[in-house]
Amino acid sequence: MTSKIPGFPARAVITEVGPRDGLQSEPVFVATDDKIALVQSLLDAGLRRFEVTSFVSPRAVPQMQDAAQVMAAFRDRRDAHLTALVPNARGAAAAIEAGVDAMVLFASASESHNQKNVNRARAASFQGFGEIAQMADGTGVALQGAIATAFGCPFEGPVALQAVVDQARAYADLGMRHITLGDTTGMATPALVIERVQALAAAVPDVEIALHFHNTRGVGLACAYAGLSQGVRHYEASIGGLGGCPFVPRATGNVPTEDLVYLLHESGVETGTDLDALIASAAQAERIIGRELPGQVMKAGPRLKTASMDSVRTANG
Amino acid sequence: MTSKIPGFPARAVITEVGPRDGLQSEPVFVATDDKIALVQSLLDAGLRRFEVTSFVSPRAVPQMQDAAQVMAAFRDRRDAHLTALVPNARGAAAAIEAGVDAMVLFASASESHNQKNVNRARAASFQGFGEIAQMADGTGVALQGAIATAFGCPFEGPVALQAVVDQARAYADLGMRHITLGDTTGMATPALVIERVQALAAAVPDVEIALHFHNTRGVGLACAYAGLSQGVRHYEASIGGLGGCPFVPRATGNVPTEDLVYLLHESGVETGTDLDALIASAAQAERIIGRELPGQVMKAGPRLKTASMDSVRTANG
Repeated sequence: MTSKIPGFPARAVITEVGPRDGLQSEPVFVATDDKIALVQSLLDAGLRRFEVTSFVSPRAVPQMQDAAQVMAAFRDRRDAHLTALVPNARGAAAAIEAGVDAMVLFASASESHNQKNVNRARAASFQGFGEIAQMADGTGVALQGAIATAFGCPFEGPVALQAVVDQARAYADLGMRHITLGDTTGMATPALVIERVQALAAAVPDVEIALHFHNTRGVGLACAYAGLSQGVRHYEASIGGLGGCPFVPRATGNVPTEDLVYLLHESGVETGTDLDALIASAAQAERIIGRELPGQVMKAGPRLKTASMDSVRTANG
Repeated sequence: MTSKIPGFPARAVITEVGPRDGLQSEPVFVATDDKIALVQSLLDAGLRRFEVTSFVSPRAVPQMQDAAQVMAAFRDRRDAHLTALVPNARGAAAAIEAGVDAMVLFASASESHNQKNVNRARAASFQGFGEIAQMADGTGVALQGAIATAFGCPFEGPVALQAVVDQARAYADLGMRHITLGDTTGMATPALVIERVQALAAAVPDVEIALHFHNTRGVGLACAYAGLSQGVRHYEASIGGLGGCPFVPRATGNVPTEDLVYLLHESGVETGTDLDALIASAAQAERIIGRELPGQVMKAGPRLKTASMDSVRTANG
C-alpha cells in the first residue's frame, strides 16, 4: 500500500497534544476526570502517542496541577506512548516518578521568545537540559526535544535556519532521537517547512523530525502537505484544534487532529485511527471546555456522508 | 523569478468571487453601494478578475437584483476582467447588454445536484448553453464553464472522473477556453485535485483550468497546494471567505482570498496583489455583512508583523 500522492509516506504517526498544549491554554482548570475521559476516547479512536501533561509548577500553571494523576491513569497502557513537557529538574524528577515514556524538553530558536516563555536565556535552558539528561540516564525515560519558534518569532520576526540546525545538533548531542519543530505562533509556511526539513535531514540524519503546526494564518494543513512531500512521517496535532494562539485574540491555534487525519486518509496515508471516532472525541472536547472549537471536519463530517435532497438550500454553484 | 516550491508556477491569477458567490449566499440584500465599494477596494488591492454578479431572476435571487448597476460601475475599467454567472438565455441577454467580459455557464457533474441547483437535468442545461453560445457569437463576450460538484456530490457521494472529463469536453466544444472545477460542498482532496487536473490537461489541453475550493473540511489550501504542484495557475477565492456552505450550518465555505494570497506569496508565487490591502478589504467585507468571516490572515496579520514582548502571555511552546 502506498500513498496517493508522490513523495508522501505510506503511513504517518500523530502525537496528540490536546491534553497538554490544548488544555494548558484554557483559562480555567479542566477537571482531571474530564482530561482522563478525553485521553481515553482518543485512545479508543486509535491514537497511541500523547503529550499528556506538563510537569510544571502548579502555581505558575494551575491547569496542569494534576499531571501525576493523569499519568497514573494511563501509565500501565503498554500500547500507549506518553510524554510530558518538563521545564526543569524538579519537573523531570516528577515526570520520571510518574512513569512517562519520554520527557519533552523545550527551548525557542529565538532568544527573546525563550526569555518571554521560560524567563531565561537559551544557554541557560540548555544548561538545564544537561542536568535533566543526567537525571534521565539509566531510568529508561527517553528525552525528546522541541524547538519553539522554529519558523519565526513573534518578537524578532525571521528565525535563521542556522539557529534551528544548531539547536537540533545540540539536542542530538544530548542523546535525543526525536525532535519537534514547533510553529509556535503560526509563522510556518510550506517553503520554510521544506527548507528546514531538508536541512535537518542533512544535519541530524539519525533523528526523527516531527512537525507541529498552528493554523493561525490558515496554512497549517498546507504546511503538513509540504512536510509530507518531504517524507516526514510524524506530526503533532490537537483534537478539535484545542489550544489557541496567545498572540492573536480571534486567531486559531493548533491544527485539529481530525482535520489532519482527514487529509492523511484522503491522501492514502494510513494513521491507524478512526476518523468518526476522532470526530466524536472532538465533540467531547467541545463539551468539556464549553465553547466551539475551530475543527472543520467535526462540523462538516467525512466527505462521503451524503445529504438528503430535501434538507438543503442551494446557491447556484 | 521562480517560485520557492518545485512545480509551482511563478505567477498565479486569482478570480475574486466574493461579490457574487459570497454575497449571493447572504440572507439579506447587500446595498449596491456597498457591493461597488467592496469591488473598488479589491481593485485597489490589485485584483483584476472578478465574478462580479449573477444575471438571475430577481425573484429567485433578490441578492443579485442589482446586477446591471454593479456591472455599470466597472464596465469601463479596461484593466478589469468582469464575469457574471448566467443561468439561462434571459440572463445572457442582460449580461451581454451590461457589458460583461465573459459569461459563466454552470452545470453540476452530478445529476441530482444539477436538479437541485437549477431544477433541470444536465442534458437540459447543456441544451440551454448551446442557445447562449449562439447569442454570444459575434458579441465579443466570451463563455466560461463551471463544473459544480467536480470533486464529489453531497447527494450522490463520489463523482466519476469521466463525468468531469466529459463535461469539460462538452464545454470545450462550445468554444470555451476557461473551465473552473468547483468544489461546491467542500469534498475536494489533494489526491482528487491531482487526478482531475492531470486528466483534464490530457483531455482538453487548450483549455485553461481554474480551481475553486471550499474550506468546509479544512483542506481548501492543501487542495490549492496540490493544484499548484501540478502547475495550475488560476484559482477562485472569496475575500474574507465570504459565502458559506449551504449544507452545513457551522461550516465555512469559500477559501479566503487573502489566505490564498498569503500562501502564494510565501511560496514565491506572484499575484500582483497587496496582502495588507486585501486584509483591509476583508475587514470591509466583515463590516458590510455585519458578522465575523472565517479568514485567518485577516485576524493574525502577515507573519512578520512582530508583537511587543509586553503585549502577550505565553503558554510554554
